This record gives sequence, structure tokens and C-alpha cells, in this order.
Amino acid sequence: MIITISREFGSGGRDLGRRLSEQMQIPCYDKEIISLIARNKGFDESYVEMMSEKGIQSAYLGTFSSRSAGVDWYTRQSIDIIVEQQKIIKDLASKGDCIIIGRAADLILSDMKPFRIFVYADMASRMKRCREREEDREKLSDAQLQKNIRKIDKERASHRASFSDSKWGDKANYDLCINTTDLSIEKIIVPLADLIRAHYQ
Amino acid sequence: MIITISREFGSGGRDLGRRLSEQMQIPCYDKEIISLIARNKGFDESYVEMMSEKGIQSAYLGTFSSRSAGVDWYTRQSIDIIVEQQKIIKDLASKGDCIIIGRAADLILSDMKPFRIFVYADMASRMKRCREREEDREKLSDAQLQKNIRKIDKERASHRASFSDSKWGDKANYDLCINTTDLSIEKIIVPLADLIRAHYQ
Repeated sequence: MIITISREFGSGGRDLGRRLSEQMQIPCYDKEIISLIARNKGFDESYVEMMSEKGIQSAYLGTFSSRSAGVDWYTRQSIDIIVEQQKIIKDLASKGDCIIIGRAADLILSDMKPFRIFVYADMASRMKRCREREEDREKLSDAQLQKNIRKIDKERASHRASFSDSKWGDKANYDLCINTTDLSIEKIIVPLADLIRAHYQ
Repeated sequence: MIITISREFGSGGRDLGRRLSEQMQIPCYDKEIISLIARNKGFDESYVEMMSEKGIQSAYLGTFSSRSAGVDWYTRQSIDIIVEQQKIIKDLASKGDCIIIGRAADLILSDMKPFRIFVYADMASRMKRCREREEDREKLSDAQLQKNIRKIDKERASHRASFSDSKWGDKANYDLCINTTDLSIEKIIVPLADLIRAHYQ
């Protein structure tokens, strides 16, 4: 039983994954993947985190616009992280039932027929969720916050587009799409776990 | 508790609605709406059925292209059916918990905050479902069947577009989108009913 959770930024997808993991008593991989990449490749975790859900193209363009001499090196590093990430995701999934958050795991593990969830919400609700976890020093204006949310989603879409034509967020690519607008995620975890188990019966 | 089910043609949305209705012990309205419109307006049921999920525009264009003199009459009738349908849907929903299939009920009843489901599947799976319920005399080629499926979906989208900018099938407009590709609908009914109840708690 492999469950992948793709999510719009601020939609509570990570929270949903963690709670599902507790409920179903199976591991959930998220930041753990970052740590493994960082360890295996000798990179800094925050650097890997920044890169791990960006598209190769946007990483490349980011460097290109900075006119540095290191374009090739930077692109190679970005591909390196993506390749390592794919390896780690396959490795974790091969160990047994698990939940994997983001990182196009649904595509990487498509041979294993994962149960593919997409979590989304309207902008107001996502901003509210971001505000709740935001630290004081990060206080952004509404406009800045919205811009950030859109930027991160765009990067996730671009990450997926780096190695597939299948579009990020297109419901056709998922088994279940859950709108968390005004939803208390906690409340639906038990029936959601049952619904996923029913899929595998 | 008002549950609306929008669905791609052949995705098993009606089946899902009927089973959910049995499981939750609340009425499910689908063809019943057609019968009520026909009775109230003195139309033939098959005529109402043909018109009830088409857009005003496509009904209008359909007539227009036939170059008949009755364009105004035909358009008026199409609007008449849509207005009557909205009245009946509001009426049924006001009587208590229920499930309503199609007919943009999620929009018509938006004030009542319905739980909005969208059911979809890939083309192969939809064709298979259509074949299973198809009578021998209706045996269509694969190409014809696919064309029919797309046409009906287009009409449903156009029906919704007649009175809203909110796009048919866009996940943002639904609370839960369920992919029924290779899914035995029967299996997920119990946890799905629980999940909907959890939403209302």
C-alpha cells in the first residue's frame, strides 16, 4: 500500500499525510527525503529543500538570469538532486507500505500503482493555514503571501513537468482530490483511511 | 445534509449516488427530476431528458442551425425547463437530506452548502461502463461511443456555463473528486458515507 500526496501549498497536505500515517500505522516520508539526499550527496539540507521540488528548467533559468559562469554545474547539480530523490523514493517504497508527500512520487512509483491523493483549497483558506504556522519574523503582507503561494505551486508544477507530460493538479492524474477549504482535516482521517484500504481490497 | 454528484458520462456517478443513497438512507434524485418537470410542464419525459442538461446556448444553436422559424419558442422552452428544474431541485432539497445527481444542483443549492462530489474516470474505463449497460440494439463502434461520451460531457459543461462562470469538472468547484478508473464503486461506499458525515460534524 503506497499512498502519494500531492498538494497545493498551504492546503494542509502535509498535515493530512502525517495524520493518515498515524491512523494507518505506516511511515510517512516528507522532510526525511531531504535529509537522505543531503546526507547521500553531501549537500546542505536547506539547499536540497529549496531544490527538491523545483523543475530542472526553473533551476536552470534561475542560474541563467544570474549570469553566473556556473550554469552547467548548477543544472547538473539540480539533475543530480532529482535523480537521487527518485532513487530514495523507490528505495523507501520498496521497503513496505508508506505515505510519500510531494516530489512527484506518484509518477516515480507509477509501476507500484500507488493511491494518488491531491489536496487543494481556495486561496483564502490556504493563506489562513500559512498564517497559522508562520513565525512572527516572517510576517508577510497578504499580497506577498499570495505571491509566495503561487510561486511555490508553480515550482511544484515545473518540477513535475521536468520529467512528465502529466500535469500537476490535473484531477485525471489522481485517484482522489480533496478540497480542504473550511475543512477540519482531523475529522476525515478515519473514513479516509478506510476508503484507501477499500481501494486495495 | 445535501450531497450533489456531478459526473463525467460513463464514470459511474449515478451508480455511486444510488448506492450512497441506500447506505445513508436518504433519497437520491435523478430521473425523478425529469419526471417532475415533464408532469409540471406537460412535456414528454424523453424531451425533457434531452434538454435538462444541455446549455441554453446549445439548445438555441441547435435550433438556429436548423433554420426553423421557431427559434424564440424553442429557446424559451429550453429556459422554461431549466427554470422549472431549478425550482424542483430547491423544492426537493428543502424537504430534507438528499442526494441530487447532475443538473448543476451544486450551484443551484450553493446557499445550502451542499457536499459537492465530482466523479470521473479515464476514457477506456468509461467506455467499458457504457458497454456494460448498453443494449444490443445500441451497439456503437468505439469511435462513435467515444464521440457520444465527449458530446454529452460537453453538453453538461455547457448547461453549467448557461448560468455560471464556475467551470464544470474544475476540481476547485467540488469538495471531493473521485476517480473511478478500475474502481469497484461498491467497495468505497461505506467509508465514503462516513467521510461525508464527518464533513457535517
